[in-house]
Amino acid sequence: MSTEQRMKTDIEIAQEATLKPIHEIAATVGLSADDIEQYGKYKAKISLDVYRRLADKQDGKLILVTAISPTPAGEGKSTTTVGLGQALGKLLADTEQTAMICLREPSLGPSFGMKGGAAGGGYSQIVPMEDINLHFTGDFHAITSAHNLLAALIDNHIHQGNLLRFDVRRVSWNRVLDMNDRALRQIVVGLGGPANGVPRESGFDITVASEVMAVLCLAQDEQDLKERLKRMVIGYNLDKAPITVADLGAEGAMAVLLKEAIKPNLVQTLEHTPALVHGGPFANIAHGCNSVIATKMALKLADYVVTEAGFGADLGAEKFFHIKCRQAGLQPTATVVVATIRALKMHGGVDKASLGAPNEEAVRLGLSNLSKHIENVQMFNIPAVVAINKFPTDSEEEIRIVTDWCRDNGIPVALSDVFTRGGDGGLALAEQVLRVVNERPGSLMYLYNEEDTVQEKIEAIVRDVYGGEGVQFTSKAQTMLKRIEEMGLSHLPICMAKTQYSFSDNPNLRGRPEGFTITIRELRISAGAGFIVAITGDIMTMPGLPKVPAAMNMDLLEEGKIIGLF
Amino acid sequence: MSTEQRMKTDIEIAQEATLKPIHEIAATVGLSADDIEQYGKYKAKISLDVYRRLADKQDGKLILVTAISPTPAGEGKSTTTVGLGQALGKLLADTEQTAMICLREPSLGPSFGMKGGAAGGGYSQIVPMEDINLHFTGDFHAITSAHNLLAALIDNHIHQGNLLRFDVRRVSWNRVLDMNDRALRQIVVGLGGPANGVPRESGFDITVASEVMAVLCLAQDEQDLKERLKRMVIGYNLDKAPITVADLGAEGAMAVLLKEAIKPNLVQTLEHTPALVHGGPFANIAHGCNSVIATKMALKLADYVVTEAGFGADLGAEKFFHIKCRQAGLQPTATVVVATIRALKMHGGVDKASLGAPNEEAVRLGLSNLSKHIENVQMFNIPAVVAINKFPTDSEEEIRIVTDWCRDNGIPVALSDVFTRGGDGGLALAEQVLRVVNERPGSLMYLYNEEDTVQEKIEAIVRDVYGGEGVQFTSKAQTMLKRIEEMGLSHLPICMAKTQYSFSDNPNLRGRPEGFTITIRELRISAGAGFIVAITGDIMTMPGLPKVPAAMNMDLLEEGKIIGLF
Repeated sequence: MSTEQRMKTDIEIAQEATLKPIHEIAATVGLSADDIEQYGKYKAKISLDVYRRLADKQDGKLILVTAISPTPAGEGKSTTTVGLGQALGKLLADTEQTAMICLREPSLGPSFGMKGGAAGGGYSQIVPMEDINLHFTGDFHAITSAHNLLAALIDNHIHQGNLLRFDVRRVSWNRVLDMNDRALRQIVVGLGGPANGVPRESGFDITVASEVMAVLCLAQDEQDLKERLKRMVIGYNLDKAPITVADLGAEGAMAVLLKEAIKPNLVQTLEHTPALVHGGPFANIAHGCNSVIATKMALKLADYVVTEAGFGADLGAEKFFHIKCRQAGLQPTATVVVATIRALKMHGGVDKASLGAPNEEAVRLGLSNLSKHIENVQMFNIPAVVAINKFPTDSEEEIRIVTDWCRDNGIPVALSDVFTRGGDGGLALAEQVLRVVNERPGSLMYLYNEEDTVQEKIEAIVRDVYGGEGVQFTSKAQTMLKRIEEMGLSHLPICMAKTQYSFSDNPNLRGRPEGFTITIRELRISAGAGFIVAITGDIMTMPGLPKVPAAMNMDLLEEGKIIGLF
Repeated sequence: MSTEQRMKTDIEIAQEATLKPIHEIAATVGLSADDIEQYGKYKAKISLDVYRRLADKQDGKLILVTAISPTPAGEGKSTTTVGLGQALGKLLADTEQTAMICLREPSLGPSFGMKGGAAGGGYSQIVPMEDINLHFTGDFHAITSAHNLLAALIDNHIHQGNLLRFDVRRVSWNRVLDMNDRALRQIVVGLGGPANGVPRESGFDITVASEVMAVLCLAQDEQDLKERLKRMVIGYNLDKAPITVADLGAEGAMAVLLKEAIKPNLVQTLEHTPALVHGGPFANIAHGCNSVIATKMALKLADYVVTEAGFGADLGAEKFFHIKCRQAGLQPTATVVVATIRALKMHGGVDKASLGAPNEEAVRLGLSNLSKHIENVQMFNIPAVVAINKFPTDSEEEIRIVTDWCRDNGIPVALSDVFTRGGDGGLALAEQVLRVVNERPGSLMYLYNEEDTVQEKIEAIVRDVYGGEGVQFTSKAQTMLKRIEEMGLSHLPICMAKTQYSFSDNPNLRGRPEGFTITIRELRISAGAGFIVAITGDIMTMPGLPKVPAAMNMDLLEEGKIIGLF
């Protein structure tokens, strides 16, 4: 391949793109200039009044993009989501129908650490990608402020007399920053004498791990936001009774700080497909989906809405169905399960260094992982479509193994080349998806009932979704089971915090492991978000920077051009 | 006064105001839609290309608003600045000439503590005041991110092997949050074992105290910003040699985070006068003025530019002249010194509880404070105009004492009622100001030379500006004097960190104290901002919250309306 023909980098493609003014994008889904507030020429927030105005309009069709268990080989879930949206836009171009995309906002902190941004890739990106990956419209900063205001109010309350009788050893509300900063994981605050408050152990998490983030992403509107904020547990008093934000009275000021952040952000793809990019909760201790408000808004504005959920389908899709769809009353019609030949080979036992060589046997073995994910989404009564996200190293025979297997099992399948070809590379996938959602759309069923106990819910997920033998609870977790019952919170759904690399809680068990049990080490209450977090391993809520952080290669050149961000 | 006639609150006035779309405001100073980037309908950032395009255009006339030494009675400097800008706009309405205002951005943190926002008051406010007082265009969040990225990179550098040999006891770079949070003043970071970095003492300051804030506000453009960032001292190595941002190589990534924050923000006053609101460094450990970029931009766009500086003229005006004007080559033409009858009475010995009663003798005594501030700005060869900011409790005789004194001393004076009457209440002041700047504008002279020693510079300020007898340096300060010389930084100007309530370093000495000496306790190097901070007392760089924080009264109502913010 000559130098001229080499694939351009993501940032080169994004910087060369010609964007349309955002009001023109808004107009394609019926939004007027008064419906949006522009943030520069290519970003806008949409007023929640738009949703209220369209409340009686019929919803469009919701399509979830999820994936096999992630491997270091990469799956390209966001890229497929963007590419599918672009392809649907092309297919529908001569009709009255429209397609939209809903994605999470990327977190700023990690961009300066290991990796670049997260807004799709190649010719399937959302733009302006630099803005989206930096401060965007300030949502995460607003969440950081609201979270830390609450933290300051808690320490101030303790300092000013502690009327609520906080046990300073049991303040459960950390502070947050949108930064990878390991030195802040465990700190002691309040040092330096009486003027500086009460000394106690504490720490910082990254902003995406804030419960305020999960709350904002599950709230239906401003009032629901406040109600959820009020329910958040921030610590325990000396009688071990929970103290909530409502006890402190901080929800009003927090909501003031979040009044713009709650509005969805409109941007476009490289092919001008409208995209709502809003919210970005962690996919482990939270549910890992963009905001309910954005999804519901998109369903009013477009006929087809493509969205994604974090990690593989065992975590992302399960939480999307059990937490987001259930709380918000959403009805998904189909699920796209993204797989790559490379990742299937890793699930079939190949290590990363050997992925370049064709290995049909490994692809065949790796199908065990894909098949379990497909079974899972079908268990929720949602049809699956398989997208093979093409890589240059894939052999025709390797691809054929997957397509044949899908056809033999009655699963619609399409090769997707949206990274290299944009929407054109996703037309086959889009056709399969349109056929499924229009001819045999799913009707969501849940794998557990609200009234099941926390234990029963976790057991259902482990047995049905992970294919495990059973669940063990540490004594710490058992104590929390009791407390959750005492607090009357057993009706909440479960948010599993498990490694994304395996169906089991051992990240090294690829493919479709069997005969394993899952250990629940800890249970945490996210009463505002409205779920119980079940922790099965070490969950890092504040990442660190690598030896040579990505920040070291970044620069702002004279013409205001950024280099090194991706 | 009947209920109907009561003066409305600031937020009521602001919420009832009819704003013009920001592109219309931009057009009044010759800016096209392409010159600005809208942030919603009523805020915009101005591209730095505008300044580059207009570089050869003649500057407008720069007017500084400053004040007597602050008292708990209040002076209304920002209100006078906005009101004077509005009045100039009225006076110039039928001419080809225009007026603009330059102000600092308010800090978010304190709004949730003791007081409401800071954007003028009454009928002399900048709007949209809620946005301006909350996240505005995200500048402070960007500064917080850039500051904390540097902090994370420092701790990561130490954790990953510490090639630069940081002495962990001498890392001088704190972290920042735009929040009043006393528990973060002194902390220990890096606890929890080897994976969490190296334990050390540290702390958080409020964002306005960040040197990044001062750097952004003194930078001429993006490249100057990077050069200043590079020079910032972040700690010392085991040989006590300074380590800078350049040694770490973090300036590029920091500049990337600041690429939008460096652009000035355009808003409007209640009477549609264009206002640039940009940057807000502390007035004690920094210079307390809006950005150089905003001021220089305004001088290209308008014929008259009204700006302000923090605290009284002994600190605000002195730093404005010696630091901001000197570094940026600005030529102020006149200074407005704001006084109130109430504050003069406090300087004359009356306590706050007795301010309601007329007291002519106290007004007469309090003039000593005003007269010294006038002498000071005249020493810089800048003419003074006195603005008496009217309060309902002022008696006619009290006002006459001040106006007579001014006339007897040849000082232009005007009664200003801009709080109650907007621009109309400032017409007399505006006329006086126009006469001075057009008939006998000042020509800035400095009170010390760059080549003077740090000691000589401080002595000049204490002797000439404060009227003190002499300066004492603690042994700690003397050590730093030597180090500054060794580092070759003696040419830098001085940034005095002194109480704003007195010319002396004792906040209780009102009026015009004499015979005092000033003790320099500590000297700090702000090599990026380009000044040496001389600390004369306890300087609080992280405020706390009061017993009942303002946050407790705030709420977001159903229609998205905010209450309790002001």
